[in-house]
Amino acid sequence: MIQLLGKDLRKKDIAELKDKASKNVNLTFYLVYDPSFNESCSYVNSIIKTLDKVGWQHVTYKLTKSYRDYGALNKIRSIKDSMVILARPVLFDEETLISLIDYRSDPDMLTDFNKGKLYSGNLNYLPATAMSVRRLVEYYNIDCKGKKVLVIGRSISVGLPIFMYFQRKNATCTLAHSKTEKIDLNKAIIESDIIVLATGKQGLIDRKFLNNKQIIIDCGYHSNGTGDLGFVPNDNELYAYTPVPGGVGPLTITSLLKNALLLHTLYKNSKEKELNNF
Amino acid sequence: MIQLLGKDLRKKDIAELKDKASKNVNLTFYLVYDPSFNESCSYVNSIIKTLDKVGWQHVTYKLTKSYRDYGALNKIRSIKDSMVILARPVLFDEETLISLIDYRSDPDMLTDFNKGKLYSGNLNYLPATAMSVRRLVEYYNIDCKGKKVLVIGRSISVGLPIFMYFQRKNATCTLAHSKTEKIDLNKAIIESDIIVLATGKQGLIDRKFLNNKQIIIDCGYHSNGTGDLGFVPNDNELYAYTPVPGGVGPLTITSLLKNALLLHTLYKNSKEKELNNF
Repeated sequence: MIQLLGKDLRKKDIAELKDKASKNVNLTFYLVYDPSFNESCSYVNSIIKTLDKVGWQHVTYKLTKSYRDYGALNKIRSIKDSMVILARPVLFDEETLISLIDYRSDPDMLTDFNKGKLYSGNLNYLPATAMSVRRLVEYYNIDCKGKKVLVIGRSISVGLPIFMYFQRKNATCTLAHSKTEKIDLNKAIIESDIIVLATGKQGLIDRKFLNNKQIIIDCGYHSNGTGDLGFVPNDNELYAYTPVPGGVGPLTITSLLKNALLLHTLYKNSKEKELNNF
Repeated sequence: MIQLLGKDLRKKDIAELKDKASKNVNLTFYLVYDPSFNESCSYVNSIIKTLDKVGWQHVTYKLTKSYRDYGALNKIRSIKDSMVILARPVLFDEETLISLIDYRSDPDMLTDFNKGKLYSGNLNYLPATAMSVRRLVEYYNIDCKGKKVLVIGRSISVGLPIFMYFQRKNATCTLAHSKTEKIDLNKAIIESDIIVLATGKQGLIDRKFLNNKQIIIDCGYHSNGTGDLGFVPNDNELYAYTPVPGGVGPLTITSLLKNALLLHTLYKNSKEKELNNF
């Protein structure tokens, strides 16, 4: 059984990003978080660690859950070479906060404009976790064409963009979720070549339905250090899988920073232009 | 077997739109078409007929396939209460043409911003054919929750938005396409509760795989007046279906005009505002 591991790619990413940072690509990351959520705080901390390795600057902004937040986010819009990361979950009107982020400063691809780009088929606009899945699939030369892919979980930031990726790569995709009947889910698990777990829940996969030609990609991470799969497969239980930790996880932050680099490259001289020139 | 028919809804639409047009909602439709494509011309003609019934103005613009087109489209941006319909197919750089359309004047929901809204789950932003499917499903009280839906065809303007609709309505959706293996397609046809045809090709459905609990929604239209299904089902062959002509087709243009009305209502006073206030 092959383990699909993110660490080598992560090392390459860090080297590449460091190199860019040393060659006058100076980005400043505004890390916006909600102190009442542990996940929000710990996400910001992980980003800071990686930014420090790379050599890019960061400013943290603690959400006050008042109108001041709108003003603060709005101010960032006009700052040259700024990137904004909204470390979710946040309690206070996420949609409005996102609407204040400039799409050119949105490496998490949360703005409607960037989501529209992905929906139109541009795979440069995958959010960080989906981009990490893409990069693992490509790194390990997994052929998707005509394959049956089951994505379980339909969040805008993980499940849905992963679905978009696989369908663009010519897989026949099924998107399952909390309203999928258990019997249908099990049937789909049996029949799929690739199964992506993106629910944040364990216990959805009954291992008796798995076989040694299948690949499982696990995007979950639980506080006890396990993924959505919740067990370590035996040697012949699957063809390949992403362990947790070590699979998708190591890539998410460097994929986010690479997204930032891409947006910066695309739009470096455009902040002065009117948006409606697009 | 139930026939799902668009004509009653179309009548209601026309009455509603006429009423709006008579009450000072004055929209002008810029119909941009490519004379070298019959489909482009005939689409514009059908829109004109409906606009004349409703009482809204229209201006046709014939693509010259030169840089003049960019200038012309760009000028429309600043016209108050204008709506732009790009009657595809067009030969000349569709993506650039679309990028010149203001999202507030885009009832076909072709711009990245509007596509992002749909991708985020806002079903007001379905393009005309997908919106027509949604409206038929709702008019006939078809319950989607937990149902297995197979959408065949993944175009940005038809198949993909229909997929988005059904998954938002809690169906378990599979998106099949030209790269789907025939054996997988047949299996999915057998197992699905609702099958949507959106390929522009006939002969994909072997009727021996159908059963009388299934619903077929046919979005195809061929020059001989038939749909993608290509045959008329027998009385007990299906639970329900949309005949061609008469099913989805009658709704597409009024759904497009209702989309225009929605955008107009949302943004009526915003053309003067900067886009980056969003």
